[in-house]
Amino acid sequence: MDMYVSGIGMTPFGNHPDHTIKSLLMDACVEAIHDANQPKIDAVIVGNFMGGSVYNQEILGAIAANDLGLGPIPTLKVEGACASGGIALRQAVLGILSGEYETVLVAGVEKMKHISTSEVTNAINAAMDNESNEKHAGLTFPGFFGVLANRYFYETGATKEHLAMVALKNREHAMQNPLAQFTNPATLEEILEAKMITDPLGLFDCSPTSDGAAAVVISRKPSDVRIAASTQASGVTQMQMADDLLSLEAVRESGQLAYEKAGLGPEDVDVIEIHDCFSMTEIISSEELGFFNKGEGYIAVEQGRTKATGDVPINTSGGLLSRGHPIGATGIAQIYQLVLQLRGQAPNQVSGAKIALAQNLGGTGSYSVVHILERVG
Amino acid sequence: MDMYVSGIGMTPFGNHPDHTIKSLLMDACVEAIHDANQPKIDAVIVGNFMGGSVYNQEILGAIAANDLGLGPIPTLKVEGACASGGIALRQAVLGILSGEYETVLVAGVEKMKHISTSEVTNAINAAMDNESNEKHAGLTFPGFFGVLANRYFYETGATKEHLAMVALKNREHAMQNPLAQFTNPATLEEILEAKMITDPLGLFDCSPTSDGAAAVVISRKPSDVRIAASTQASGVTQMQMADDLLSLEAVRESGQLAYEKAGLGPEDVDVIEIHDCFSMTEIISSEELGFFNKGEGYIAVEQGRTKATGDVPINTSGGLLSRGHPIGATGIAQIYQLVLQLRGQAPNQVSGAKIALAQNLGGTGSYSVVHILERVG
Repeated sequence: MDMYVSGIGMTPFGNHPDHTIKSLLMDACVEAIHDANQPKIDAVIVGNFMGGSVYNQEILGAIAANDLGLGPIPTLKVEGACASGGIALRQAVLGILSGEYETVLVAGVEKMKHISTSEVTNAINAAMDNESNEKHAGLTFPGFFGVLANRYFYETGATKEHLAMVALKNREHAMQNPLAQFTNPATLEEILEAKMITDPLGLFDCSPTSDGAAAVVISRKPSDVRIAASTQASGVTQMQMADDLLSLEAVRESGQLAYEKAGLGPEDVDVIEIHDCFSMTEIISSEELGFFNKGEGYIAVEQGRTKATGDVPINTSGGLLSRGHPIGATGIAQIYQLVLQLRGQAPNQVSGAKIALAQNLGGTGSYSVVHILERVG
Repeated sequence: MDMYVSGIGMTPFGNHPDHTIKSLLMDACVEAIHDANQPKIDAVIVGNFMGGSVYNQEILGAIAANDLGLGPIPTLKVEGACASGGIALRQAVLGILSGEYETVLVAGVEKMKHISTSEVTNAINAAMDNESNEKHAGLTFPGFFGVLANRYFYETGATKEHLAMVALKNREHAMQNPLAQFTNPATLEEILEAKMITDPLGLFDCSPTSDGAAAVVISRKPSDVRIAASTQASGVTQMQMADDLLSLEAVRESGQLAYEKAGLGPEDVDVIEIHDCFSMTEIISSEELGFFNKGEGYIAVEQGRTKATGDVPINTSGGLLSRGHPIGATGIAQIYQLVLQLRGQAPNQVSGAKIALAQNLGGTGSYSVVHILERVG
């Protein structure tokens, strides 16, 4: 059964002290519904991670349906750490495949900027297993991906400069994106000299905390962007469970499944959004998704191949690093950017883009969701 | 496409200081997988409400898949307030209908007894709309259902005694249920004289806080209990939005849809689990589900018709009131009891039960999920 993205909406990402979690959610939903020409909506699925813990607000599904006047339709929230948005979209795809729905509104939202950094860190740590000795020993997500970076350096010969090149590239992309959180220029030197977060990851290597929302309407009714694949896989919930630190099994598995479903390979993809929660993650995941050989992703970065102007354009939105990372919204914001690309209306437009891939990660590689979109209009 | 409940598992509900949220979840899942004869599981869906806010533990989907050794399969958590468990089950049904999965493990879990009553109240209030003046004025869920009860009394002539009869009936059912939270006897006088929570609801009219988990395995592979319908509807997120205080639109809608899907009516149902978060809720929902005329549910209670020995047996498990209400687990625990009924192995067994109905409510009537099960073995 074919299905399509018929509408998209997104708030600016960043600091929104004058917005509530509900007003952000509503803004993105209203825009997506208008963009889809106000179809009848059969269900609402919301991706959100920390609404309950830091904003005392759950039932976002019912709130959206009520306040948008959509009637007594099924609604829910889904959670899968930082992959909550991508998982929400995949649940909508399954709902349509099931025959229960024709058209589904999918939204992602997060409000994180009203709390302190330590409160954010604590809330995000809910994406680790409480019973792991790693969490109790003080491991955080920057720590986890910092360990991966050091191992990557050891095995491949990559250096901090390669990570900085990823951060700089994504910043330069974000400068063209009016919805991005960080649009001020940066230099390689500034990035390399920035405050260390966890060795070797500096400030620019880490995605920020962000407020924001994004929404899409998907439907069986034909429109110009077809969903060619929607896949998901799981990986380890603790670092010590990994056979190989540099293998993000869920990313590889969800990518392979997506290529099979879509009947194409990484060489067919024109534009890509990868979950760059850290600069290191973008490189490893670009390898796991088959765009580069294992251990060679950093070389592609050095050669400029992953820039919007390169042959494997990654994170033309600015990515999590510079577009921003309101957790539940991220997976949907990736789709927003890729639909703009396929419509020929994107910041950092890739000329003639026809096939696009989004990959959304949760936890220590615990969740990965891949969507492949195809321009058919 | 037909599908079946092939395995069930459940922990005792109550106070589990020696268990973690993960150990409860694992215990229920392992039991359900064994009961299903250890099939290959294609996805895991977990219903949970306050794991993030009061236990700093999200990613319950990935944790279950990892610790059960199920491989890199898709997993997620779903939230819809107190209907989280029922919604999780419905998402699994849609996943199977979509053709993506053959067999899905669905679990619900909550850990609430380690925190204070005021912390529980605050966490549960995340199931109200933050921006409603009702929440800011201090309305809580007992307050909401207390208002409904007073209105019901005013319109129908029912009294506190009728609520007490519901509480007493469910306690008497729970006394036969080895997994129930409250198995000590109570009397009508004791219930009527108990501490007032919010007028007219006394302590026994309100479901308790509970720790616990329940799990089911559902599959396309035939077994003795078929899922004849799985439906969901939404209602208002604020009391002031309701046209009629005594109309729980989501319950009525989800019930009607379920009867249509299953091709039967309330008169065909042999045994029922209704979401009795408060004694009043059981009566109103029994009317909305068509078991009694509007405004007459309390008469059926007085006549003993809703006892396990009556002609419309409701909450033979003891219900939320006495079996307990670990929020995310409740919708799955209802299925656990009904499958036991259809297997002829339940506490308070209804002789020859063939058709069973479960109704799971969330928020101020914001979510309602109905499942109809049929014995086919």
